[in-house]
Amino acid sequence: MNTEITIQDVAQLAGVSPSTISNFLNGRHERTSPETLERVQNAIAQLGYSPNRAARHLKTGRVQMIGVIVPSVANPFYGAFASCIERAALQAGYQILLGNSERDPEREQRYAEELWHYGIRGMIFGSSLLALTHLAGLVKRGLSIVAFDRQTQAIDDPPVDSVSVDNLLAARLATEHLLQLGHRRIGFVTGPLRTVNRQERLQGYQQALRAAGIAPERELIWEKALAQGFGDTESVELGRSGARELLSQSNRPTALLTINDMYAFGAYAGARDLGLRVPDDVSIVGIDDIVLAEVVDPPLTTIRQPLCEMTRAAVDIIIQRIEGKTNDAPQHLTMKPELVIRKSTAECRD
Amino acid sequence: MNTEITIQDVAQLAGVSPSTISNFLNGRHERTSPETLERVQNAIAQLGYSPNRAARHLKTGRVQMIGVIVPSVANPFYGAFASCIERAALQAGYQILLGNSERDPEREQRYAEELWHYGIRGMIFGSSLLALTHLAGLVKRGLSIVAFDRQTQAIDDPPVDSVSVDNLLAARLATEHLLQLGHRRIGFVTGPLRTVNRQERLQGYQQALRAAGIAPERELIWEKALAQGFGDTESVELGRSGARELLSQSNRPTALLTINDMYAFGAYAGARDLGLRVPDDVSIVGIDDIVLAEVVDPPLTTIRQPLCEMTRAAVDIIIQRIEGKTNDAPQHLTMKPELVIRKSTAECRD
Repeated sequence: MNTEITIQDVAQLAGVSPSTISNFLNGRHERTSPETLERVQNAIAQLGYSPNRAARHLKTGRVQMIGVIVPSVANPFYGAFASCIERAALQAGYQILLGNSERDPEREQRYAEELWHYGIRGMIFGSSLLALTHLAGLVKRGLSIVAFDRQTQAIDDPPVDSVSVDNLLAARLATEHLLQLGHRRIGFVTGPLRTVNRQERLQGYQQALRAAGIAPERELIWEKALAQGFGDTESVELGRSGARELLSQSNRPTALLTINDMYAFGAYAGARDLGLRVPDDVSIVGIDDIVLAEVVDPPLTTIRQPLCEMTRAAVDIIIQRIEGKTNDAPQHLTMKPELVIRKSTAECRD
Repeated sequence: MNTEITIQDVAQLAGVSPSTISNFLNGRHERTSPETLERVQNAIAQLGYSPNRAARHLKTGRVQMIGVIVPSVANPFYGAFASCIERAALQAGYQILLGNSERDPEREQRYAEELWHYGIRGMIFGSSLLALTHLAGLVKRGLSIVAFDRQTQAIDDPPVDSVSVDNLLAARLATEHLLQLGHRRIGFVTGPLRTVNRQERLQGYQQALRAAGIAPERELIWEKALAQGFGDTESVELGRSGARELLSQSNRPTALLTINDMYAFGAYAGARDLGLRVPDDVSIVGIDDIVLAEVVDPPLTTIRQPLCEMTRAAVDIIIQRIEGKTNDAPQHLTMKPELVIRKSTAECRD
């Protein structure tokens, strides 16, 4: 193998001093003559000298690094997600590198390929697009993936490990809570339904309504399908617009379920824009339980994801895969969400 | 150079088929005999064959990639920061990879070294620690750095480019606004003062007080110096504790300036915990103007950073450095912050 070759070997073969080689490798060769430069380059090529760690990785194809692709760094939930993953990874001796995909399959793929070329063999995807086909090529070449926030998809190709909260149950719990408070007209506010978790949340909402004998109404579901980009920069603004539109209807909903807490904060503002008070005039429920949920006024009733458990599980699985400690079929872990009742929901007064 | 060597060359030298080489490179060599494996490895070493892009980078030592180290992914300000950088970078044909340092010099250094070893030659540091000495080694080897949120430090070693809002002015504007409303007892709430920007904000607050003939009082400055970690996971909680402690004093402040908006949201909750209303009983000002500032109740008076301009400038500078288009001495760009008056501040009634 070529790993024993030192900078001295290269210097000797090129007939220059080791510091000339070092300067070359560090890009400082303004004062080196073209002839010397060529000798240095030839010596490096001839010996197959690999100056940096990127090259050393070629030996094993692996680094102690996990790639993490987040759907949107603008949402504090994914900040907390990345922090939790990092904590678990550091404990296991791994570092993480983050890419921001804005839920765009093309960007996901580009990041995955870049990280793959750097020798990273395990990646966690923060929110799972409806199809994973854009990653199939890398998975076939040996990339291990944990899809986060995505329940079992029997038909997934490629099959990958996944860890998710039960998103359907999350939305069902939220909706049932509102039903128990006597609400019958419950609106649903969401951005683009490009991810599995969002579709499941919509289903959970619809299931809970049907179970209570209420037919879901199209006019009560506000979806901004064509938000600029697919990230969360605009999530607060979308929550605000959605709430404002739904609450402006003549037969307006008395409660809103939003796709996540950031949308709920926007919905607070949308209600305020119309002179409506939360929860007196309209109840609002979020999903995620980000740190701000407890702090806003009124404190937000929401659905808590067991984020630490989930991320720890994701890190455990990906490391087992990277280190080749398991060849089992992909696992699908589904964790239970929990209703956290605060002050943004109250009995329906209509 | 060794870049012309193909998988066929390696296969020929090893006396195996190209698909055996390909399988080896992709980690699928369960069915390859140890002898064949050794021949393959030797052939790769002998020819200096570089199968992946990581190796191709050795030729130039460069990739179309910028490293971005954020102080804390838990703060939405840095989410917006990363998004803005990414947008500017993509327009220029660069991707970004993110590392999360939690303001820990050791972690900053470790990320910088990893990214360096991957061939990344330009990095933007999101918030600048008091000293940059932990990065001096890499800068000497050719790493270009833009320090964000850090004003000119004449004595910086190594000297690096920097882009910053005028943090001193930011805190001065906020404090002057409160002074104009008649407040004389103004509290200051902050986490660990480990970064240049935070120290400058504290100075701006003190300067504005002195300019108004008020001696800054130690009891009105609440600093949580030993927060667990140096990240922002606890920033809301810290803002809440700080506000609660300051506002519990017998001669309590009538206004609070917090180190950033997340602390301000915490301070809202801290005031509420004590039965105090914002702004009737206490005025609160933040710094950053994150997207939630407009949405919380009451909407937050804060200091806006020109984030897009700042990040675009940072990306321009780093690309010029990476591409060797400038050898000028480091630049220090300082941009003007702006007071945004909303509803969290009112005339002092004491």
